[in-house]
Amino acid sequence: MDPYMIQMSSKGNLPSILDVHVNVGGRSSVPGKMKGRKARWSVRPSDMAKKTFNPIRAIVDNMKVKPNPNKTMISLSIGDPTVFGNLPTDPEVTQAMKDALDSGKYNGYAPSIGFLSSREEIASYYHCPEAPLEAKDVILTSGCSQAIDLCLAVLANPGQNILVPRPGFSLYKTLAESMGIEPEKSWEIDLKQLEYLIDEKTACLIVNNPSNPCGSVFSKRHLQKILAVAARQCVPILADEIYGDMVFSDCKYEPLATLSTDVPILSCGGLAKRWLVPGWRLGWILIHDRRDIFGNEIRDGLVKLSQRILGPCTIVQGALKSILCRTPGEFYHNTLSFLKSNADLCYGALAAIPGLRPVRPSGAMYLMCFEYPNFIRVVITVPEVMMLEACSRIQEFCEQHYHCAEGSQEECDK
Amino acid sequence: MDPYMIQMSSKGNLPSILDVHVNVGGRSSVPGKMKGRKARWSVRPSDMAKKTFNPIRAIVDNMKVKPNPNKTMISLSIGDPTVFGNLPTDPEVTQAMKDALDSGKYNGYAPSIGFLSSREEIASYYHCPEAPLEAKDVILTSGCSQAIDLCLAVLANPGQNILVPRPGFSLYKTLAESMGIEPEKSWEIDLKQLEYLIDEKTACLIVNNPSNPCGSVFSKRHLQKILAVAARQCVPILADEIYGDMVFSDCKYEPLATLSTDVPILSCGGLAKRWLVPGWRLGWILIHDRRDIFGNEIRDGLVKLSQRILGPCTIVQGALKSILCRTPGEFYHNTLSFLKSNADLCYGALAAIPGLRPVRPSGAMYLMCFEYPNFIRVVITVPEVMMLEACSRIQEFCEQHYHCAEGSQEECDK
Repeated sequence: MDPYMIQMSSKGNLPSILDVHVNVGGRSSVPGKMKGRKARWSVRPSDMAKKTFNPIRAIVDNMKVKPNPNKTMISLSIGDPTVFGNLPTDPEVTQAMKDALDSGKYNGYAPSIGFLSSREEIASYYHCPEAPLEAKDVILTSGCSQAIDLCLAVLANPGQNILVPRPGFSLYKTLAESMGIEPEKSWEIDLKQLEYLIDEKTACLIVNNPSNPCGSVFSKRHLQKILAVAARQCVPILADEIYGDMVFSDCKYEPLATLSTDVPILSCGGLAKRWLVPGWRLGWILIHDRRDIFGNEIRDGLVKLSQRILGPCTIVQGALKSILCRTPGEFYHNTLSFLKSNADLCYGALAAIPGLRPVRPSGAMYLMCFEYPNFIRVVITVPEVMMLEACSRIQEFCEQHYHCAEGSQEECDK
Repeated sequence: MDPYMIQMSSKGNLPSILDVHVNVGGRSSVPGKMKGRKARWSVRPSDMAKKTFNPIRAIVDNMKVKPNPNKTMISLSIGDPTVFGNLPTDPEVTQAMKDALDSGKYNGYAPSIGFLSSREEIASYYHCPEAPLEAKDVILTSGCSQAIDLCLAVLANPGQNILVPRPGFSLYKTLAESMGIEPEKSWEIDLKQLEYLIDEKTACLIVNNPSNPCGSVFSKRHLQKILAVAARQCVPILADEIYGDMVFSDCKYEPLATLSTDVPILSCGGLAKRWLVPGWRLGWILIHDRRDIFGNEIRDGLVKLSQRILGPCTIVQGALKSILCRTPGEFYHNTLSFLKSNADLCYGALAAIPGLRPVRPSGAMYLMCFEYPNFIRVVITVPEVMMLEACSRIQEFCEQHYHCAEGSQEECDK
């Protein structure tokens, strides 16, 4: 057995045992390479590891706030509906998993993009005449995170750019300019600004609807305008629709792909939020490409990239059909009723606090609140009594500190 | 809501929404960038997508062999022990999953490196005095594939190299030089060649033991020699030990980390093979670094990289404790007895065929067979009767074609 050398592509990209130049017999393919040895141990993380940065983790992990020993902590920071136990998934969803386990049919490897039968189920569940889907248009992923990761990886090369709507992570100054928008309105994308930013290096636009962190739901008309920009500029769209169908009864969710026949769209979704099982890591990409602009190349690219980690857990894949077909409508309805009721409760309580300006959400699981001095995102999945208690603590805090809100941030933070 | 631009790092690496330069207000941070628009649709896959290449898939997907309509196909190509239904997982393993589902405790997000309790279970299961482990030394991953992916991503920068033992994917000429090794011997690494290949750009060595595709198990002495090279050259080791403990009774598996106190080792493993559930995608990295050479930087790098897709399915994580503690010893024993018996059967049958030279495996799930004219890997998890039928078909084939084995490959293949 003789060792051989795998040379990392010096063009960049994530190193992979599949992404290699094989170098037989010890002759390096790198011209002019100096042969040298390491005289002592020095193992440093790669540039990629150093540059990978999760802003939420960075904030949470660096919070050195000492908790008040007299109060139980109420965490409003993590978009996980399961944390407090008040939003369990439906028993049919759990039963579907048990059935998949008992069948013994879902222990082996699936194709890296998912079992054909599972992809058929997703395709028929999300199929509609305006945006038809077949199994070949579906790629199952390890959560919606991997769906987004694969879409970006297939569309964008180093040196390109992508355009993302905000708010999200932003500066007070920028947000202040959005303040003219009435709280009842959805947050809409500044289309002029969007079109201005697009250039020949723009790989895609990201549209997140319903939105995290805004809880906003775009109108059909606004989505059509975004699509018109994409069509005019020939830029594909990554639609992050993980909160799809999670809208309150007074407004309507429009899947982006149903509103366009020409813009190629990769829609990302998953079981996480609507079925209340974010830990299960079952996500998907729906490929909408009726004008064959992505073509086989993008499809093949997604398939190849999916082969790096070989797809999501097969038991969840095996349970998909029952999860989609047997979860009662009442379950979705109850979740949304609870979220709507909690949103109203939270909105009412925060709107009464001098110095805060909450924005009433229309969907998803969040409420945004501005002006103190930047903004906060409130997760509205906590039990009612805790929601109220949290709002009353926020009120107490604001009443203590609001008097200096006209001054500088430093003064407020002292 | 105003859109903003995310610029892909032009240094390379997998594009990610977390790996960005934010560019507020439309001013590009790329000096001298030409502002331009796309006049027509042209969406091409990224270089990374194009370069990601799975050699097994490429072979299997391009096989245009018409199956014999009179014979049922016996697939000996995929290392999935569940394909034929003769190797089910243990009922305790399935029950552990059901218990995790019923508890309702494992539906939410886990930390991206896995639940602390699950990491504790892995640490205590694989802990031994020579290679101590705590929860902080364990990272759970979406299968062993992601474990290997993360290890390579954290250790190697573009332009560096890694060293991999073979056979595996190789050329006949190279293999011919290995033919002097007796079939009963393990495949050993040519240590001189290994040391010759290491240079200052070598990010790590990969040691795969027990080995796919050889079915070989390295002796303690040989592993110690590999470690001595690594120590002398100051190069860390990625130990792919997914077949750990899967060795036949006549030889012993030595976890690499138990044999060294100084070489930093990332050992990759998972539930896939030993527990016969490859589709569940539960893998792990064990960090062995007693001399603190990796230090916090490599550990942090692994954590950060794990945040891209947020870890393996939480139900499997929740089931880990019971899977590790309650799977009866008989289950492991029966699996190995079956593999050993099938290995003997297959070895005996193939050794009797003129022109083939099988190598008797000592572990894992494979048998290698040489000389016709290159080599084949036989998966030995198929039911006995199919194993025999497969060998008899191979015999029939070889008997028809062996007469020209002394000639060129072209003549044989006609």
